[in-house]
Order: sequence, then C-alpha cells, then structure tokens
Amino acid sequence: MSYLAPLYSPIEWVDETCSILDQRKLPSEFIKIPCSTYSQVVDCIQSLAIRGAPAIGIAGAFAVTLAVRESLKLTPAERHAFLKNALYQIARARPTAVNLKWAVERMSKLISRSTPDKACFEMALAETQKMYTETASDNDKIASFGSELLPKTNRSIITHCNTGGLGTIGCGTAFGVILEGFRMGRVPHVFPCETRPVNQGSRLTVWELQQHKIPFTLICDSMAASLMQQEKISAVIVGADRIVSNGDTANKVGTYNLAVLCAHHAIPFYVAAPFSSFDLSMESGQSIPIEERSPEEILSAYNRNQPNFPVSVYNPAFDITPNNLITSIICERGVITPPFKSNIMKLAQMEGAPENPLASNPYVTMDR
Amino acid sequence: MSYLAPLYSPIEWVDETCSILDQRKLPSEFIKIPCSTYSQVVDCIQSLAIRGAPAIGIAGAFAVTLAVRESLKLTPAERHAFLKNALYQIARARPTAVNLKWAVERMSKLISRSTPDKACFEMALAETQKMYTETASDNDKIASFGSELLPKTNRSIITHCNTGGLGTIGCGTAFGVILEGFRMGRVPHVFPCETRPVNQGSRLTVWELQQHKIPFTLICDSMAASLMQQEKISAVIVGADRIVSNGDTANKVGTYNLAVLCAHHAIPFYVAAPFSSFDLSMESGQSIPIEERSPEEILSAYNRNQPNFPVSVYNPAFDITPNNLITSIICERGVITPPFKSNIMKLAQMEGAPENPLASNPYVTMDR
Repeated sequence: MSYLAPLYSPIEWVDETCSILDQRKLPSEFIKIPCSTYSQVVDCIQSLAIRGAPAIGIAGAFAVTLAVRESLKLTPAERHAFLKNALYQIARARPTAVNLKWAVERMSKLISRSTPDKACFEMALAETQKMYTETASDNDKIASFGSELLPKTNRSIITHCNTGGLGTIGCGTAFGVILEGFRMGRVPHVFPCETRPVNQGSRLTVWELQQHKIPFTLICDSMAASLMQQEKISAVIVGADRIVSNGDTANKVGTYNLAVLCAHHAIPFYVAAPFSSFDLSMESGQSIPIEERSPEEILSAYNRNQPNFPVSVYNPAFDITPNNLITSIICERGVITPPFKSNIMKLAQMEGAPENPLASNPYVTMDR
Repeated sequence: MSYLAPLYSPIEWVDETCSILDQRKLPSEFIKIPCSTYSQVVDCIQSLAIRGAPAIGIAGAFAVTLAVRESLKLTPAERHAFLKNALYQIARARPTAVNLKWAVERMSKLISRSTPDKACFEMALAETQKMYTETASDNDKIASFGSELLPKTNRSIITHCNTGGLGTIGCGTAFGVILEGFRMGRVPHVFPCETRPVNQGSRLTVWELQQHKIPFTLICDSMAASLMQQEKISAVIVGADRIVSNGDTANKVGTYNLAVLCAHHAIPFYVAAPFSSFDLSMESGQSIPIEERSPEEILSAYNRNQPNFPVSVYNPAFDITPNNLITSIICERGVITPPFKSNIMKLAQMEGAPENPLASNPYVTMDR
C-alpha cells in the first residue's frame, strides 16, 4: 500500500531549489514558492505557506540543506557561526510542533561531523530526501494500523484541521487512516471541521477529500457536538503537533473540544502521528509551549472595512488534550493504548527509535 | 434599573414605517431599512437583517401591524383572506424561535375581534409598542435576577451569539445579565465566541461590549474548551430561541457544545430568555424544528474565488441543549432550577402567563 500522492506534494526539490506549495492560497490558487535560502523556508513555515507538523519537519530539513549550501560561499572559518545561527532560526520557526526540532537535530548531527563542504551539502540533501521517503512510508503504516481500528458502520468520521498529504507528506496521518478506511469500506462519509481561524479544514481537507473522491459534508467547528448527539458519528480522528511521554497531545485548537465531546458521547477519539511527533523529554502536556498567532487571522473574516476597529483577540494555534480523553494513539510502530506512559516507553525502546532529543550537539541548544 | 439603550435599537416605528437596523452590515455600516409592508419585514427576518428571538418577536408584531394597514386598501370582504395569508407568512418566517409565533398569535387575537379598520391598525400599533416596552422591561428583570447568580470572581464569562439590545430589545437577555453583572463588579471580563458561520459574536456582541465599555477578548468557538481547562471561566450564559416544557433549549448552534464543556469542567451553564421564548406545547427538545440555512453562510468565508467549487455543507442554525446540562434558566419571572418540568409549570401558572399557544384563533393554524 502506498498513497504517495502524485497529484500534489507540499514540498519538493526542483531545479536546485526547495519548492513549497503555498497552502495559504489553496484551494483558489495552486502556486509554488521556490526557496533558495533557508530564510525563505523559515518565512514559509512562519506564514503557514507550509504547515502541518510532519510537513514542517521536512521543510526544516530542506532549510538546513539550503543553509549548508549558503555557508559554502563563506570562508571555512565563518561557516560554523553561520550554520549555528541558521539552525537556531530554523528550529524556532514555530514553537509547538516538535517535528521541526526533531528534523533540525537529526540534520545537525549529520552535518556537524565535518567542516561544511560540497560533499556535506550533498549528504544533507540525500538525508532530507530520505526523511521525506521515510515520512511517507511511516504514514502508510499509520493508515494501515489505524484503519484496522475502525468498525464497519454507516456512521461518519469527524476530523479537524488538515492531516492529509498537504500537511504531512504522502497519504497523511489522520487523513491516511480515513483514506484507507474509505478504501476498506469502513468510512462511508466524513465531516471535516472548518477549523477556525485559518480554515485548514474547509480549504485544505475539503480539497484533499475531493481529490480522493471521499464523500464528505463540511461543518463549522461548533456543529460537531450536535452531530454526536444525533448519533451520526463513529469516531473522531486527529493528528498531533506534539505528543509527550504520558500521551498528552498538542494539536490544532479545537482538538481538546472534540475530545471532551467524544468522552461525553462515548465515541472513540484517535490521535494519529509519526513517532517524530513524540517528545519524550516532557512529562506532561502542561509543559508544551502553545503558539499564539496574529489577531488578524480571526479578524480578517469580517472586519474588512474596519482596519482600525480595535478588538482584543485570543488566538492560540493549539490546545492540549489530556491522555485520559484519548482512546488510542496510532503511530508507524503500532497502536498505543492506555496506560500511555509505559506503552509509549516500550515503543521508544524499539529499534529505530529517535535518539534522545536532549543529547548534546554543536549547533542547537534546545529550550525545553 | 433600565438599560433601554438610547444608542441603538434593532427596530423602531419612524415616519409611519417600521425601521429595521441592518445587522448583516454591522459593525462596518450602520444602515436602516424602512419597511412599509409586512413582506419587507419578513424579508428582513429571513435574511437576518434582524435576528435574535425576542427581536424577531417584536418584528413579527410590527409586520402584523403593517399587514393590517395594507389590508385597508382592500375591500372589507377581501381583508380577512389577506390577513390570514399575511399572518401565515409572518409566523413562518423562521421556524425555530417561538417568539415569532407567540407575537403573531397575540396580535392575531387582538385584531380578530373586528373587521380590520383604521382603529384596528392603531390598536395593533399600540399593542406592538406595548410589547416592545414589556420586552425591554422583562429584560431588565432578567438582568437583575441573573446577575444575582454570579459570584464575585476574577474569572471571565463566556457567551455565544448575540443576546444584547440588537437581538432582544433593551439591555438584552444573557447580555443583560452580563451587563448588570459588570456594573455590580461580578463580571470583570467576557470572552464572546465568534459564532460561526454568521459571526454574530464577533460582529454584534463585540460591538455591544464596546458600546458598554465591558472588557472582552474575542475567541473562536473552538477555543472555549481550552479556556475552561485553564480555569479562566466562571460561567457560560446564553440566550434561547425556544425552551420547551422540560427545560430542553434550542439556541444558536454551538450552545450544546458549550453546555457539554461546562458539564465536563463543572462550570455553571445559564440560559436567559423571556417567558415568550417558552413553548409549553412541546414535551422535549427533540420536537423543536431546527432551521437549516444556506451553505453560502459558511462558504463565503474562504471560497470567494471559486464560485463553482462544489462543497457539500451542513448548516443548522441551532442545536438542542438537554435540560440535564442546564444549571438554571433565568426569565423575567425568576430563576428556574431543576427539576425544570415542574418548576416551569409553576411559573407558567403565575399571573400574566402567556395564553395557551394552542388556543384556537381565526388567522393562524400552528403546526406544532
């Protein structure tokens, strides 16, 4: 099984540049941004031209690759300081998803073995492309494990934000589970939540559902409760920006709301994410930094004629779902059920586990 | 105490016409629509130029008044059929709020006593203005009863949709409770929910909070859960479009979501509405008709460049909150606590209770 989507990819290496599909413009326009410097990639990450924890992990790796190439224009003595600053900027482009830091640390360890040179750049590019392929392959496994959890039903799945190929590479995380469930006849229909304020659900997930011809009906975020009350929902499946060692999960704001609703209505609540989204250095979700974004993201919807209309706004991009509201966490190594703390630790000790994220490296000092 | 707001009213009798403030344009533009026919008022109700259960009740009474005046141009023999059709159209302009039917029935009984003539029109106008004043006065009582329930706290109130003077006449229902609570020092701050898809919270409630200088911070609907988790919320207060005899309540979609969140976080959940919003002919909320509105209300937010982009949408304007999730219902006769069925019945038997809505009258056959 592979869903590596030939129709679209959020990020590619084309003509010696990193080409990023501008998701802010979707579905109205299909525009690619060619990035030849790491700063351009950082801008794309911060402005949400590319978003989704696994996708910005790959973007971070591409950014490091570009930074290595940029450093070659400097004297060998200057390269170390340039790269140290570049990796610092890249790792901090957005604070909540841990994949970005995971990718930068993996790349950092690779390139720190020698003074950067052309061979180092080629090695970085090869490693980035390997991470891309691994991420897509991991998502296939997530889709396979997750779809097995879904019962045959005539009820619908609710999902939030966007976790398809646009936000994650390949078939997606939660979206991949839905896609494979649809192919198996276990997902007859999907209710994607609009996902205010950036509308990733109504713009991006709706677009991906259309590409894959999965029947769906768009709802506003506040309507999920009513659908559950009407017994129309079989499960909620979401992605994750960071999962800590006890299973607490940071994801798009509104996720915690859905988890509370699921508990009230006795509906399974699934989180699907690659192991690169796990942060075993944190004990609980309370430690996860939550990014607050511009009020304009909310106000732009209805405030067009009043640029000076002063409105105080709270705009957290994420919320924290505590482990006790999560039925299972699906990753490429399998399905994790409670008790999450001990079961996550078992998976972490499997072969191929990511290295200790707190391990020292010469470029990045992590502020955890 | 009276908050009869001199700054704005959603509906007024000006220059022999019914003048309706176009709430679709607020807060960007402050435009009034002069209505000289009942059909124009019906259009305003259906298009949401005027909205909010108590306000559309008053609009319904004005519409009947205009219909009586229009009928005077016809022969006496034609007037009865014209009015019968007019009242049928007015009562059904929107299905969920019961205030509209309540107002039409009250007016219907008044005008059915004689063949419509000029005196009948003047009587209808006087009755409409009496209903307006009563509604404002009832809201003052709701504000007084409700504010007594609020503890002194540094936590904030969450409210949904718009229940201020724009949607209700006078100080508002849930908004009036907040306003009086603010004046008493019991409401330091409010989080109004955006209220997708028509944004009554971010457009109208924000505007009213500004008019009254109440500190607030706008949130998207999906963010309320996270604020409750952070222990920042003392109570949720909402209005109602219809409350049935067991206390089940229809209100703006997203209300049920908030009620589930309150139960999960042990936060009081209050409903504030005049007794004209009660429908004692219904046993439970499952019988309440839920209006579904145009997909365009949702799609217009982000679909501007793709008029032909086909997206299936579910857009219910209301949801049903079951009585077991409601802490108290506040009306002008007092505060109703569980068990709601018997306590609502006691209030219904108080002097001044509305007549049996199923009572026969010559103009309106209600489909309950």
